[in-house]
Amino acid sequence: MNIQQLLTFAQQNFDRFLEELNAFIAIESVSSDPERSHDIRKAADWLSNKLNSLGLDHVAIFDTPLHPIVFAEKIFDKSAPTILIYGHYDVQPESPVELWNTPPFDATVVGTRLVARGSTDMKGQIIAGLAAVEALLFGKEELPFNLKFIYEGEEEIGSPSIRDFLEEHKELLAADTVLNLDAGMINADTPSITYALRGLAYFELLVKGPAQDLHSGVFGGVVDNPAIVLSQLIAGMKDDQRRITLPGFYEDVRSLSDKEREELARVPQTADTYLSQTGVPHLAGEQGYTCIEQNTARPTLDVHGLLSGFTGEGAKTVIPAWALAKLSMRLVPDQDPVKVADQLKQYLSENAPPTVIWDVKTFTGGYPAFCDPDQPASKALQDAFELTWGKRPVLKREGASIPIVTEMKEILGVDSVLSGFALPEDNMHAPNETLNLEVWRKGILTIIHFFDLYSKQMADA
Amino acid sequence: MNIQQLLTFAQQNFDRFLEELNAFIAIESVSSDPERSHDIRKAADWLSNKLNSLGLDHVAIFDTPLHPIVFAEKIFDKSAPTILIYGHYDVQPESPVELWNTPPFDATVVGTRLVARGSTDMKGQIIAGLAAVEALLFGKEELPFNLKFIYEGEEEIGSPSIRDFLEEHKELLAADTVLNLDAGMINADTPSITYALRGLAYFELLVKGPAQDLHSGVFGGVVDNPAIVLSQLIAGMKDDQRRITLPGFYEDVRSLSDKEREELARVPQTADTYLSQTGVPHLAGEQGYTCIEQNTARPTLDVHGLLSGFTGEGAKTVIPAWALAKLSMRLVPDQDPVKVADQLKQYLSENAPPTVIWDVKTFTGGYPAFCDPDQPASKALQDAFELTWGKRPVLKREGASIPIVTEMKEILGVDSVLSGFALPEDNMHAPNETLNLEVWRKGILTIIHFFDLYSKQMADA
Repeated sequence: MNIQQLLTFAQQNFDRFLEELNAFIAIESVSSDPERSHDIRKAADWLSNKLNSLGLDHVAIFDTPLHPIVFAEKIFDKSAPTILIYGHYDVQPESPVELWNTPPFDATVVGTRLVARGSTDMKGQIIAGLAAVEALLFGKEELPFNLKFIYEGEEEIGSPSIRDFLEEHKELLAADTVLNLDAGMINADTPSITYALRGLAYFELLVKGPAQDLHSGVFGGVVDNPAIVLSQLIAGMKDDQRRITLPGFYEDVRSLSDKEREELARVPQTADTYLSQTGVPHLAGEQGYTCIEQNTARPTLDVHGLLSGFTGEGAKTVIPAWALAKLSMRLVPDQDPVKVADQLKQYLSENAPPTVIWDVKTFTGGYPAFCDPDQPASKALQDAFELTWGKRPVLKREGASIPIVTEMKEILGVDSVLSGFALPEDNMHAPNETLNLEVWRKGILTIIHFFDLYSKQMADA
Repeated sequence: MNIQQLLTFAQQNFDRFLEELNAFIAIESVSSDPERSHDIRKAADWLSNKLNSLGLDHVAIFDTPLHPIVFAEKIFDKSAPTILIYGHYDVQPESPVELWNTPPFDATVVGTRLVARGSTDMKGQIIAGLAAVEALLFGKEELPFNLKFIYEGEEEIGSPSIRDFLEEHKELLAADTVLNLDAGMINADTPSITYALRGLAYFELLVKGPAQDLHSGVFGGVVDNPAIVLSQLIAGMKDDQRRITLPGFYEDVRSLSDKEREELARVPQTADTYLSQTGVPHLAGEQGYTCIEQNTARPTLDVHGLLSGFTGEGAKTVIPAWALAKLSMRLVPDQDPVKVADQLKQYLSENAPPTVIWDVKTFTGGYPAFCDPDQPASKALQDAFELTWGKRPVLKREGASIPIVTEMKEILGVDSVLSGFALPEDNMHAPNETLNLEVWRKGILTIIHFFDLYSKQMADA
């Protein structure tokens, strides 16, 4: 069958796909709720049945210390490239339930939108992917690539089991690219692919001075104040251009190409958007970069918490014995959180006065990720978007971390293509979560195009 | 009678003075304990009886919103100078009582020391003063100066009533000098007079950025971080010589004369003393000054508390909406806490970036005090010490504030002579408070000498 026949098949089955989505949504797979572990298991069962019904092989539910992971595959030729489709079948809690206009787990069509918990994050995205797979397998007996599927049930609680699972099943999960539809669009007219994520290096810095709190009248003037020294150390971590001064910090930062900067300029996130989203009096970022570059493509340093001495009501005149800061750096490709920890310690060694003792506690961080937007699968998805939306998707970077993407890269050695059809107005993680059904249907057609274009690329190769 | 006869009178009555002290101590006048307000009243009654028994006039107990104030006077000639003797009859709580080796309110002689709560702070000092007055009035029918007495019952809880009392009774309390024996000696061989105290300007500084805490991945890079801005503002308040950078901060600082620096150098408080008292790895203070100068004669700036964002266990990546610091400046003559508040605000206006909103809350501070060591009463006490101890007292400054001294100056316009016979090892405010009885007896003789020398000065004048 040709591509048009595959698209027609999908279009003829949209209503059934939606019924399946409604059934999937009805299972209350809230991963953070210990009382609903039975629902989590039901959702995993539902998925595995669905994967079986598509004629996939080796459908399996793997137990983990917490919620199960569902796997399936379709291997046509072991030497052919493999696409690993990632998703999560768990959802956010529905609370506060009184703010919902319709029952959270009884999917309700309101206008052009489906309202339900998990409708867009990400049961809708899972069904979209599987609908496209169904169309593909219905129309083609042989593919020039293989398919694998992995669905976890812990994404909304930080994926505590996925790392070990990836480590233990490297062979099973081996792939050439990951298709991850857990990201979203910029707006209903503007698809996007996220090709880079920032990493994280997180620390607790403790500065200790006197053996105990001192009276600032009795001892003020002869001892350094740990809260002031901490302030000085933090202040010294940025220069007046808001660049980070840790030694060697920018050495591994990959420069932005002109092409990337042009692409990022397409992201419709202006200074005004940032101002209204944050409520700050004025924006501020590293000199020489646009807001979107500062926010997604440049490393940053933030202090998350300060604690020292007396912080209650009123006035107490102590020189505190210690002062503490929580701080982290968001890292961009190709920075390394382990090297950044060394840079922080070197900075402190060089800058902390001998009047205090300092200590740094390192928390688990994460590597930045760069998923080549020129890889075949990304190119195929870009073309697929152009066919369905009539314009090329915005290639963008994300300021936050998405651990699954970096873990797939780190452990399996595979780049992700990170995209999806969720919209900013979809109320993800909030009451009245919605799925734009028109966008969703276009999304299904997009993934069919993606498979078709990828097939052609692979067949040509 | 000549001075020798007065001294002999005192020596013959030491045992009785001690009995009186024991009786005074037995009244559990713990001002912080609401259940002992009856004891407080009893102590006030005891004192007023004692003052009456000395033949003083206008002995009165004034009620205040909390604990009573006891007054008395002996006016010989309204045109003669007047000495106002200040004291407090309340004591610190005895807790933890299990750490006492003897009953806290049953004064016990152990070796050469009297052990009891209030023995040195300051019932012993009150009785020493009154013993000297008794000797004086026993020996002289007429004096070339007048005496006034004021004893409060709230010193150990911050003297909440004294300000209003001074304001309301300016006439009654009018005097030329205050004798305040609530300070102490450097050691049993080294008397001292404190002629200057530091003042205080205390603030809470709030730096506000985003409307609420932001995700540092999603927004890091485009907004200033309030905790970092606060750190920068604090860091900027001192230069690399540890001098305070607030505009005009040093303009009103009275320079130390060579004579003062020589005197302060006599204070046996070395760098090693400070190191062992504070437990800091290294001392640090304003360049160009000795430790004792930095600590007592130079203004300082300390941060007492920092609070911002996430300070719990673990890692949370917020850009905090706000950051708060408690900070204060210790002020020296002739700085003014009201002017310092303006200097702080000017500094913030000039240095805070437009990316944040700042707010300063001013707490009640206090003026620094300078009590001329060349005033007649101070000279008389210096000479008196030389007669009894065989060496001149160390003229020193105190790093902390003593509000009653500044209030006497501010409201009554009168300088204090601040001294006393308490010793560093007397466990003031701690269990097993002691009074060195030999020092105490020498103290009584010293005050008799003081009155005698002061009389001669006044007679000569």
